[in-house]
Amino acid sequence: MREFILKASKAFTSPFNLNDLAGSGRIDLVCRCISNAFFISEAIRKDVCFHAVLEGPREPPKLISFFGNELKNVSPDERNMASWIKKALEVGLGLKKGEEKFVSSGIMVAKKSFEELVREKAKSYQLIYLHPKGKDIREFEFKENFCFVLGDHKGLPKKTENLLERIGAEKVSVGKITYLASHVIVICHNELDRRL
Amino acid sequence: MREFILKASKAFTSPFNLNDLAGSGRIDLVCRCISNAFFISEAIRKDVCFHAVLEGPREPPKLISFFGNELKNVSPDERNMASWIKKALEVGLGLKKGEEKFVSSGIMVAKKSFEELVREKAKSYQLIYLHPKGKDIREFEFKENFCFVLGDHKGLPKKTENLLERIGAEKVSVGKITYLASHVIVICHNELDRRL
Repeated sequence: MREFILKASKAFTSPFNLNDLAGSGRIDLVCRCISNAFFISEAIRKDVCFHAVLEGPREPPKLISFFGNELKNVSPDERNMASWIKKALEVGLGLKKGEEKFVSSGIMVAKKSFEELVREKAKSYQLIYLHPKGKDIREFEFKENFCFVLGDHKGLPKKTENLLERIGAEKVSVGKITYLASHVIVICHNELDRRL
Repeated sequence: MREFILKASKAFTSPFNLNDLAGSGRIDLVCRCISNAFFISEAIRKDVCFHAVLEGPREPPKLISFFGNELKNVSPDERNMASWIKKALEVGLGLKKGEEKFVSSGIMVAKKSFEELVREKAKSYQLIYLHPKGKDIREFEFKENFCFVLGDHKGLPKKTENLLERIGAEKVSVGKITYLASHVIVICHNELDRRL
């Protein structure tokens, strides 16, 4: 299983305009990350889970989780992916802390913060913080259960980086350049695919 | 310089609906390829040229070329990229064979076919046909001037593959899996970046 967590610090947490994804706290970026995590040519990767933690207005935080083994009727284009995020936010309006709801096959929405989620995962997963100054992914040893952690266009704030360090996250790099989060996901998959 | 040619066999060649990119002959796919070719975190790759050859209705073929060293006001989201493609198609309406027109800084439109373009490039470039059965890109030797050739979701037809072989294109693979064209571009960049 390949798991990803994206911290989308500005992404709207209440329904937004599908014609202005970039203006909705960079929902476009979230869509591209999810799309790149799941799609290969003519198929969906069944062994992927993607957790997007949205932290923008007006009901932060919202965790939207996508499970490849159950995903249906999704396409790789931003608008389609955004329509699922919008539906999840509609279903999740008014959720109380810790509550979660079914959105559609393979999609859940919950009222859970990034910090809570990574603390939970740290108990049984190798947490991998993708960062240009980490160890080279081509030399990295993955354990059986691992989970990648990514920041958005704002990167992760120092406080969050400190938390990740405290709970044992390992820094891993995909190259010297600072890539877009959605590109980092493609490179991680490619490295893991080569090891199959 | 890193050059890419994408053959988009169904992409509309007359202005389309920005709210239905997937239904416009998979313009969404073209947008993701262009976006992935140019964007890194907070910058545009200046050393990239991207040529999209659109072959769908109603005025095929149309070649839209993007030059990183002059691109302005573009964002990585599909809708923004699609708005530039739409503008190029508007500017290019009624172009005659061989004619080209300026669209915006770093964007040109021409009435030129994929076959003409690759034949031209073959004269002075190492043509690299990205294909799952090619040589591994991690072991591949790039010459000074090279140009990647990609197919869309339909792949390249046998006739086009034969043409590429005749003009000396080399088959290169980024991995065993058949990736989306937009993902292949990310992996190519990553390999080249690592060699800098």
